[in-house]
Amino acid sequence: MSEKKKICIVGSGNWGSAIAKIIGNNTAAMPDKFEKEVKMWVFEEMVDGKKLTEVINTDHINVKYLPGIKLPENVVAIPDVKEAAEGADILIFVLPHQFVRRVCSSLKDSLKKSAIAVSLIKGFDVKEGGGILLISDVIEEELKIPCAALMGANIANEVAQENYCEATIGCKDNINGQMLKDMFQSDYFRIVVIEDETTVEVCGALKNIVAVGAGFADGLGYGDNTKAAVIRLGLMEMVKFCELFYPGSKQATFLESCGVADLVTTCYGGRNRRVAEAFVKSGKTIEELEKEMLNGQKLQGPPTAFEVNYMLKSKNMEDRFPLFTAIYKICKGELPVDKFMDCLKNHPEHM
Amino acid sequence: MSEKKKICIVGSGNWGSAIAKIIGNNTAAMPDKFEKEVKMWVFEEMVDGKKLTEVINTDHINVKYLPGIKLPENVVAIPDVKEAAEGADILIFVLPHQFVRRVCSSLKDSLKKSAIAVSLIKGFDVKEGGGILLISDVIEEELKIPCAALMGANIANEVAQENYCEATIGCKDNINGQMLKDMFQSDYFRIVVIEDETTVEVCGALKNIVAVGAGFADGLGYGDNTKAAVIRLGLMEMVKFCELFYPGSKQATFLESCGVADLVTTCYGGRNRRVAEAFVKSGKTIEELEKEMLNGQKLQGPPTAFEVNYMLKSKNMEDRFPLFTAIYKICKGELPVDKFMDCLKNHPEHM
Repeated sequence: MSEKKKICIVGSGNWGSAIAKIIGNNTAAMPDKFEKEVKMWVFEEMVDGKKLTEVINTDHINVKYLPGIKLPENVVAIPDVKEAAEGADILIFVLPHQFVRRVCSSLKDSLKKSAIAVSLIKGFDVKEGGGILLISDVIEEELKIPCAALMGANIANEVAQENYCEATIGCKDNINGQMLKDMFQSDYFRIVVIEDETTVEVCGALKNIVAVGAGFADGLGYGDNTKAAVIRLGLMEMVKFCELFYPGSKQATFLESCGVADLVTTCYGGRNRRVAEAFVKSGKTIEELEKEMLNGQKLQGPPTAFEVNYMLKSKNMEDRFPLFTAIYKICKGELPVDKFMDCLKNHPEHM
Repeated sequence: MSEKKKICIVGSGNWGSAIAKIIGNNTAAMPDKFEKEVKMWVFEEMVDGKKLTEVINTDHINVKYLPGIKLPENVVAIPDVKEAAEGADILIFVLPHQFVRRVCSSLKDSLKKSAIAVSLIKGFDVKEGGGILLISDVIEEELKIPCAALMGANIANEVAQENYCEATIGCKDNINGQMLKDMFQSDYFRIVVIEDETTVEVCGALKNIVAVGAGFADGLGYGDNTKAAVIRLGLMEMVKFCELFYPGSKQATFLESCGVADLVTTCYGGRNRRVAEAFVKSGKTIEELEKEMLNGQKLQGPPTAFEVNYMLKSKNMEDRFPLFTAIYKICKGELPVDKFMDCLKNHPEHM
């Protein structure tokens, strides 16, 4: 374990670039622990007639996804993912959910046997034949290496501007958590490492469903009390979901940044909340609003509600999760949104 | 236990009146469990030339503290506290903190021996000779009867308008929790009863300190990430405070409405947050802002920060609570507010 660790960041969007800034500074400051050069896989595209990798490697700014922020010069953009990952000891996955399997399958034969991964990706993967998988499970399954997760109340631009915030790393005991903490932590990006990896990751996915509910409450004109109740019942359904489907999950994890803090930020500031509020007020569909409000980008809350419902329905457990179920039905058009609060009047929490 | 319970509400402000509405409806609906008439002690004052008790008993509206809301006709206002409490089985304390001892001392010789109390009052009482007491402890000590607590993310006007919300009742096993739930719960006011009475009450007091910190973060121009970190570190200091000073406190209690939900509501919507933000932006003192923004009413956050610091300092524990300590020092003028975030950079949570 005394050899210097080589790091590859698999992905270079808004969040990947913000993280590259921190990691590049850390490897330069800890030459005994890490190889100074940090390789970053960049999906090649042309920006104003230049290749994005060349712009990053010359000007040290990701002009497309994190404009205005200088990256450390030791972060090197590489357009070929196999080349970027070659010899890496630590692979940091931070790319859109739907590319994970494809990227893993092009990496799987060329990785160092002792490599480890960290996923920064939020969401579930639908399992063929039923059920859902965590992204870290997909990575572990595809690459046969252990995978940790980093989640928290983190907005990429605020982190890039060095605003104080926190994150949680979940990593089982087959990964050296202190090494990951050294790699990610800075003065302004404060890390807590815990072993309960699964719950860390589940929180990151489920919070987006709750945020849709918070947006409904806002759109229906309810005040702070009602919204607080929606958020808390959402949290309790997150807890219950972990207890049922991920035994060993610890309640203390929900008090970490990946839990309560991320949930609250998402329910007050996030775009799932914003679109859900507009859904109530405008009467338009989620798809129409995604086109209008997000330039066609997709929300994560509604598809996660569908994936979760798929599993709950197959296990005949919809009525144990009235909030998740109501949000699913409203998004699907099976329940009018003005019935939302009625669904919470006999919540199992109050029995 | 089969006899009908007589209820007295000790206090008739904004929150007391909102609760009287729920309880009056419940006693009328459950004649086998409760005496229909609910007595409410009203501090007599003149409103437009009429006695407030008479207005309440004639028009069934507390025109001074909860205008526009019809109270059930079986809620009867009584200006003499001893008369109101005579023969009561359940006393609900909902009055300003500073009147508790005085009211208790005029009640103590005339109460039913088997009576119980419920406190809806948030805050600590400073113990003579050092340390702090919970309000329920003061009531138990003065009246020699057991006392439960009801806390939660509740704004009186929203509850009075029948907006959906939740509350937590903490009651030890010397009180029948189901009876209290029957008395307080309605379609829109959802109750969870737990045994961890102390933590329920401590949450209600400490959250106001954290809200001052959230207001500082807002005033300093930080974004959602940083505010989420402040709120979460506040929550962790609340947890730590209970662990150290109230052994037996359960972590699950912080996930109830009295914990996370009330904290979040207060840190986004409350007046402690609002005044603390103005404190940063205006450079005025807290006292000046209370006069300007609150008509001279006092905030609860700063005095609670002082009380808590008094205890932490005497036990040499200030550095284990960097958030509480920084807020205290800033309110006291010992630390410039722009050093607030620096105090969180080496928080014990991140060690």
